[in-house]
Amino acid sequence: MEHIRQLIRTIPDFPRPGIQFKDITPLLKVPGCVREATHAMITPFREQQITAVCGMEARGFIFGSLAAQLLNTAFIPLRKPGKLPGQVVAVAYTLEYGSTTLQMQRDALTATDKVLLIDDLIATGGTALASCELIEKLGAKVAACAFLIELSDLGGRAKLTDYAVHSVLDYPA
Amino acid sequence: MEHIRQLIRTIPDFPRPGIQFKDITPLLKVPGCVREATHAMITPFREQQITAVCGMEARGFIFGSLAAQLLNTAFIPLRKPGKLPGQVVAVAYTLEYGSTTLQMQRDALTATDKVLLIDDLIATGGTALASCELIEKLGAKVAACAFLIELSDLGGRAKLTDYAVHSVLDYPA
Repeated sequence: MEHIRQLIRTIPDFPRPGIQFKDITPLLKVPGCVREATHAMITPFREQQITAVCGMEARGFIFGSLAAQLLNTAFIPLRKPGKLPGQVVAVAYTLEYGSTTLQMQRDALTATDKVLLIDDLIATGGTALASCELIEKLGAKVAACAFLIELSDLGGRAKLTDYAVHSVLDYPA
Repeated sequence: MEHIRQLIRTIPDFPRPGIQFKDITPLLKVPGCVREATHAMITPFREQQITAVCGMEARGFIFGSLAAQLLNTAFIPLRKPGKLPGQVVAVAYTLEYGSTTLQMQRDALTATDKVLLIDDLIATGGTALASCELIEKLGAKVAACAFLIELSDLGGRAKLTDYAVHSVLDYPA
């Protein structure tokens, strides 16, 4: 996966001082590597009868929709408030600065669904944990959470001890 | 394409009174139909040596990343302000209520690129026109704009007379 890692650019102090932003846009320019990265995210879960991939707005949509195609499952978007029509369920959670809310449509999943949660990156794990809570609010099971990039020094994995967690590339401190 | 149309739900008065929102989430649950819809968006442009697909945040990411895979091209995200690191180019444009800005990284495209712009829906065409202007700011050529859904009574196509425009499903008034 070193050739994938070389397509991820670290931008210092974005969006705020002290943040080492991981820019995936060079990777997105190389379709074969995007495919390979998505395969690496889903491969451990191929035999687990996943029925749906959930992806978080907005970069989670890029890999989530590809993962759902590769697994031949539903793709379910998790979105910021005001974006999804109809009845929704919501979970509020805290970020480094302030708080936010994630929503999913109430009819997105049922108790028979086994879900793979997909995002490009796990940092502190707050968004992923909120996403798992949303999925469980609808009675569905979180089979696993898969990320392209893990900022392991930020301890996100420790928030997700109830779930299987898989990441392709680790960036320790 | 009638089976695709049946997977698109019209939600009245969302997000504001008078808007007939097109909800694509039922379609996103059926992976074979998502694949078919994406194929229908790109098929007219298969022989045009497209080098990049541009997709607008956030639903444009879902179909844009799939289209880039099918065409084996780069995927370039067009985003709201503050999301893309590094040097960006920006275009401000007006929406029905207020104005907004779309950004692209300055190194996203070069003068040799032929771009297919992808979004799920064209309404008044403001976002699509701003996207074309962004692409041209970097000297690249807009080969075409492709949408799954066209709300043709809103006249978006008339804003894009300089470009080839293709939509899969028309929803006249």
